[in-house]
Amino acid sequence: MKREAAGDREASSREANLEASNCEASSGLRALLKTRRRVEFRDTDAAGIVHFSAFFFWMESAEHELLRSAGLHVFERHSDGSETSWPRVSVSCDYRSTARFGDELDIAVCVAAIGRTSVTYQFVFEHDGRAVAQGRVVAVRCLMRPGSRLEPVAIPSDIVARLTASDAGLEKHRPESTP
Amino acid sequence: MKREAAGDREASSREANLEASNCEASSGLRALLKTRRRVEFRDTDAAGIVHFSAFFFWMESAEHELLRSAGLHVFERHSDGSETSWPRVSVSCDYRSTARFGDELDIAVCVAAIGRTSVTYQFVFEHDGRAVAQGRVVAVRCLMRPGSRLEPVAIPSDIVARLTASDAGLEKHRPESTP
Amino acid sequence: MKREAAGDREASSREANLEASNCEASSGLRALLKTRRRVEFRDTDAAGIVHFSAFFFWMESAEHELLRSAGLHVFERHSDGSETSWPRVSVSCDYRSTARFGDELDIAVCVAAIGRTSVTYQFVFEHDGRAVAQGRVVAVRCLMRPGSRLEPVAIPSDIVARLTASDAGLEKHRPESTP
Amino acid sequence: MKREAAGDREASSREANLEASNCEASSGLRALLKTRRRVEFRDTDAAGIVHFSAFFFWMESAEHELLRSAGLHVFERHSDGSETSWPRVSVSCDYRSTARFGDELDIAVCVAAIGRTSVTYQFVFEHDGRAVAQGRVVAVRCLMRPGSRLEPVAIPSDIVARLTASDAGLEKHRPESTP
Repeated sequence: MKREAAGDREASSREANLEASNCEASSGLRALLKTRRRVEFRDTDAAGIVHFSAFFFWMESAEHELLRSAGLHVFERHSDGSETSWPRVSVSCDYRSTARFGDELDIAVCVAAIGRTSVTYQFVFEHDGRAVAQGRVVAVRCLMRPGSRLEPVAIPSDIVARLTASDAGLEKHRPESTP
Repeated sequence: MKREAAGDREASSREANLEASNCEASSGLRALLKTRRRVEFRDTDAAGIVHFSAFFFWMESAEHELLRSAGLHVFERHSDGSETSWPRVSVSCDYRSTARFGDELDIAVCVAAIGRTSVTYQFVFEHDGRAVAQGRVVAVRCLMRPGSRLEPVAIPSDIVARLTASDAGLEKHRPESTP
Repeated sequence: MKREAAGDREASSREANLEASNCEASSGLRALLKTRRRVEFRDTDAAGIVHFSAFFFWMESAEHELLRSAGLHVFERHSDGSETSWPRVSVSCDYRSTARFGDELDIAVCVAAIGRTSVTYQFVFEHDGRAVAQGRVVAVRCLMRPGSRLEPVAIPSDIVARLTASDAGLEKHRPESTP
Repeated sequence: MKREAAGDREASSREANLEASNCEASSGLRALLKTRRRVEFRDTDAAGIVHFSAFFFWMESAEHELLRSAGLHVFERHSDGSETSWPRVSVSCDYRSTARFGDELDIAVCVAAIGRTSVTYQFVFEHDGRAVAQGRVVAVRCLMRPGSRLEPVAIPSDIVARLTASDAGLEKHRPESTP
């Protein structure tokens, strides 16, 4: 499956795999954002645990929180009605242990790779120090025109800088607390 | 990331990657289920397209439809209050093109690999013959006791048979139509 | 609202039951659409039952199915980029009994009232003949321009006709089957 | 239900506004909880605004936050495997204006009535002082046994006290901040 996937994204997938183990490790990437989130009832299912889909919602919200904390917009609206945003082209999640209603999850976000048009994020979820899940999202910067196909566009260098910078600034930024 | 993941699941992940390209191809796996699903408004987002999370809900429902069509239960309740079911340990989705409110999506499901405790499903989503997304789910057969950790259990041979059988029987079973 | 609702729910449940019998009863309204829907896992919660929110998603989908079956569009796109649609201004749901994963729910939809700009729908949910829930949605026909407030607009007479007509035509229309 | 709701929404909106002013007004109820919540992308739809269902999720989470802030459990697990919780029997929401991705909503929660087994909550949602929505939830204290019907039970007097008390204590409790 991954072999067929073309271009930029493919490259960054490979990088991401290599770098994944670095996320949060001493030698490598540092979390650009650490946040916390309480499991809400909407996120549970009849097996009595968090539904596997909920982690994708939390990854998306953590990504948006990271963008905001880096001074970036999730959507940039242009005068001609088009928008630039970050739709995802590939996502995955591996589950280590269950989480339940009311649990507070610690979420760490790393930027694992940046390609010409894509950013690969890694996410680690823990509860009281116990590994719960880890996920990966490849988002591509796209121009979105109503009724047209999404068009990938190069990530401007200042945005690359904000997402890769020695995260000193970001770490000083106190992320919004979460419910 | 995948390196650390242990045991049975790891093996089946590797198999799944090898076999993925067979899904629906003449030489290899055949779809055990083909179903169709209309994009509902709940599944869209403010970018005007289907939210990426929706594909995971549809994969889960298609998996359940496949289980039912094979004469299997999604949950088996035992007399001591425990249950056996199929929580997922790893999921992923790659997005090829956008889908929108009202679109009817064709969904094909293959069983790509079966390990001692796990089943790897592959999913292909199309709209009017155009590739929309493809996904992968690794579900592990688990015993679930209230308040305890999930405990992986071996998949009984008759269930393996139903999920791998020359799908003659399954294909004769007319899958439930979808909205 | 507060004072009347004060007592126990039993009182308001009883009223609701009296009103329920209007929808579908000989003296009153007739269902313009009857459809069926299987409870999916996404719609359950950790109490082991359907989450109360799911009924609103099903009401919305049934409303859309009704519009389509009446030959109407959910969204009408105009050449200037604006759209006409039916956002809701008021919704409610009363719950009679629980539904669970896998249950097939019978859903009946009536048009209870049509005003200058609004349509009031009534919904009745049953499982094997047992009352599960009943809901009400007031949708207002609105012009939606990007970045502007929603602007209620009069419902054209041909749309009123389609939604109130002796439903002969609608009843002949076989509603889409559901999962 | 039908007859009163008949006309245009304007009538019922007006009533609702009159009642709304009770919650939080000097003569009447006081909010037991004020919290704030940022609109996440999962809560939007293809009309570019918050999906109407999202307010029900937020009401539920605010109700749970209120229970926790009052020192109460959302679920009480009993030694025989049964649980006591608060399923809802009736919910409604009236929408005043739209909210969009990223907006921060102020949410006020009042306890409008307490019956033998039920609690009626009122919710007011605002954005920058502008009315967005108001909702009502009737939750009933129920004993839940696996596989059995929900059984309403009387609310213990100490819980009534905590939910109706001069809210001094509650107000001192700083609600959890939200994302």
